[in-house]
Amino acid sequence: MAIQSQCLSRLAFAVAGVLFGASVSAQTLDVPAKKLLAPGTVSPQMQVLIDAPRRTGWDVLPATGEAWRKVADAAAVGTLKALPGLMQRMQVTVEKTTIDGVRAFIVTPAKIAPENRNRVLIHMHGGCYVLSPGEAGLPEAVMMSGMGGYKVISVDYRMPPEAYFPAALDDGVTVYKNTLKTVDAKNIGVFGASAGGALTLEMMLRAKALGLPLPGAIAPGTPMADVTKVGDTFYTNELVDNVLVSRDGFCDAGTKVYAAGHDLKDPLLSPIYGDLSGFPPTILTTGTRDLLLSNTVRVHRKLRQAGVEATLQVFEGQSHAHYLRDDSAPETKDAFAEITGFFNKHLAK
Amino acid sequence: MAIQSQCLSRLAFAVAGVLFGASVSAQTLDVPAKKLLAPGTVSPQMQVLIDAPRRTGWDVLPATGEAWRKVADAAAVGTLKALPGLMQRMQVTVEKTTIDGVRAFIVTPAKIAPENRNRVLIHMHGGCYVLSPGEAGLPEAVMMSGMGGYKVISVDYRMPPEAYFPAALDDGVTVYKNTLKTVDAKNIGVFGASAGGALTLEMMLRAKALGLPLPGAIAPGTPMADVTKVGDTFYTNELVDNVLVSRDGFCDAGTKVYAAGHDLKDPLLSPIYGDLSGFPPTILTTGTRDLLLSNTVRVHRKLRQAGVEATLQVFEGQSHAHYLRDDSAPETKDAFAEITGFFNKHLAK
Repeated sequence: MAIQSQCLSRLAFAVAGVLFGASVSAQTLDVPAKKLLAPGTVSPQMQVLIDAPRRTGWDVLPATGEAWRKVADAAAVGTLKALPGLMQRMQVTVEKTTIDGVRAFIVTPAKIAPENRNRVLIHMHGGCYVLSPGEAGLPEAVMMSGMGGYKVISVDYRMPPEAYFPAALDDGVTVYKNTLKTVDAKNIGVFGASAGGALTLEMMLRAKALGLPLPGAIAPGTPMADVTKVGDTFYTNELVDNVLVSRDGFCDAGTKVYAAGHDLKDPLLSPIYGDLSGFPPTILTTGTRDLLLSNTVRVHRKLRQAGVEATLQVFEGQSHAHYLRDDSAPETKDAFAEITGFFNKHLAK
Repeated sequence: MAIQSQCLSRLAFAVAGVLFGASVSAQTLDVPAKKLLAPGTVSPQMQVLIDAPRRTGWDVLPATGEAWRKVADAAAVGTLKALPGLMQRMQVTVEKTTIDGVRAFIVTPAKIAPENRNRVLIHMHGGCYVLSPGEAGLPEAVMMSGMGGYKVISVDYRMPPEAYFPAALDDGVTVYKNTLKTVDAKNIGVFGASAGGALTLEMMLRAKALGLPLPGAIAPGTPMADVTKVGDTFYTNELVDNVLVSRDGFCDAGTKVYAAGHDLKDPLLSPIYGDLSGFPPTILTTGTRDLLLSNTVRVHRKLRQAGVEATLQVFEGQSHAHYLRDDSAPETKDAFAEITGFFNKHLAK
């Protein structure tokens, strides 16, 4: 099916080839089987992540919101167990709240950096629109708050089976609009990885459509910016990325359940197809083994072509969102230092 | 041998793993064979490049400078045939000259942009230190001159069998020193791809060692920054990149002939191992299928960690240096627009 859809675009090109007078062959590139090990130049912590076996259950494909909730709760156990230690190391406190009816957590660092006193970051967690409910969505927010000295509002947006597209986006926008009542847009940053990266981009499209002022900067990490399986690394990094593993794996299944029949090419599900002009300064993060490397670099190119100040960082050997998996890894500190430095540079004070 | 050297680093990590208390397994990631087609989102011209068969003779490994010169002359025929048309489209003239004994070409655009009147770019061509002699090294210089409106000095540095390491670097530095006599360092940019990207970085290391002022900006494209076969995409993109194809292919053979027994880990052959602090603002270019994607992103991270203003652009689906192969491709114009924009921003007037 995947090859089939590529064949269709190949056919379209063959026609274009005739028009352009190009020499066209239908040949595919045959790549033999290979064995991979983590590169020796990354930290021991990152080697552990890179050499880990493929994610358990990557090819289990629940088809309903109810089934996904069970998977999400089971997957959350380990995260919830590790969370108190992470909060302690990052020296942050977490307060559960509700903002205009949307569940959220306020993450506050022991020390808010002086230049950050009037700044707020809004966090949209990842998890293919179906995973990491409640506190399980917090680790990235906790790291950003602790490493950057920021107050962070982490949105515990509705997910299946509680609600479906565009509920997650609606909840993010509700929190953004509420924040605008007390904080200038230019003092607000929005960030998140994977589905959270896509939601960050989708929020900008929605904010533009609503005529809202846009935030001062955004940091979409390895965004699920194209959920139609278009993107070269869906193929080249298939079974190389040990987190997402395959374009036909769990993450695709979760996204389809959230979309609930809605067109996956809608820019509010695949923001690469939206008009990215006027977007705030953007920093994008990915890794060389990331199944979404193409998603990420395509967003970067499209932002640059739209005249947006956009920065790309790509980490050696890392699969999808490895950069936020181990707060002790120097690569994690490096990635967050770049992102918080970017916010510090671009957000108003 | 490659797996063996990775196994050694894996073993070193296993020891570290014991120290760090990490759970260590010796398992490799088995990736099955796959078939690849160009993504449908790139231009027709780029699809032709991406879907081209692997480079003819990628696994032919000449072992002497004399043998390489024959290969280089044969490979140059097509380039020389295409050059007049390219020069015409780019509206540039080329003058052959000698600068302090070093062969070079002065490339002059029909219109030098007013802000570029006091600026000069120095070009170091690619070709694994053994390919693209004489006019065959010019296409990248011609495109940069024409698309950016710059005077470009393209260095026709000595290669085997005429001379060996560090002759290419010496010739680049000679031209840079000569240019400094009439142009302020901050008005000079240096660029090149592949071996030319490595030479650009090596020239900065040598200039620092000599106490010379550094140029205003540099643009190393997909640099051969680590010729010791360290880098994850040497493995993940093996036989995926249809230009370089393999870490054990022609480019490695050419580099070894140039090195002539010199330690390949010397920063003047593998600049990733040098001290990159104090480098000028740098823009790096690569593609998702590039065998040197890891080389490029590792240089980017290392520059950022050294506090250097460094920008990374990664193009969808492209193998090694595809971004400068077809001047009609929109991706080529996009890549050069970013690079000339970077020079315009950072070079003094």
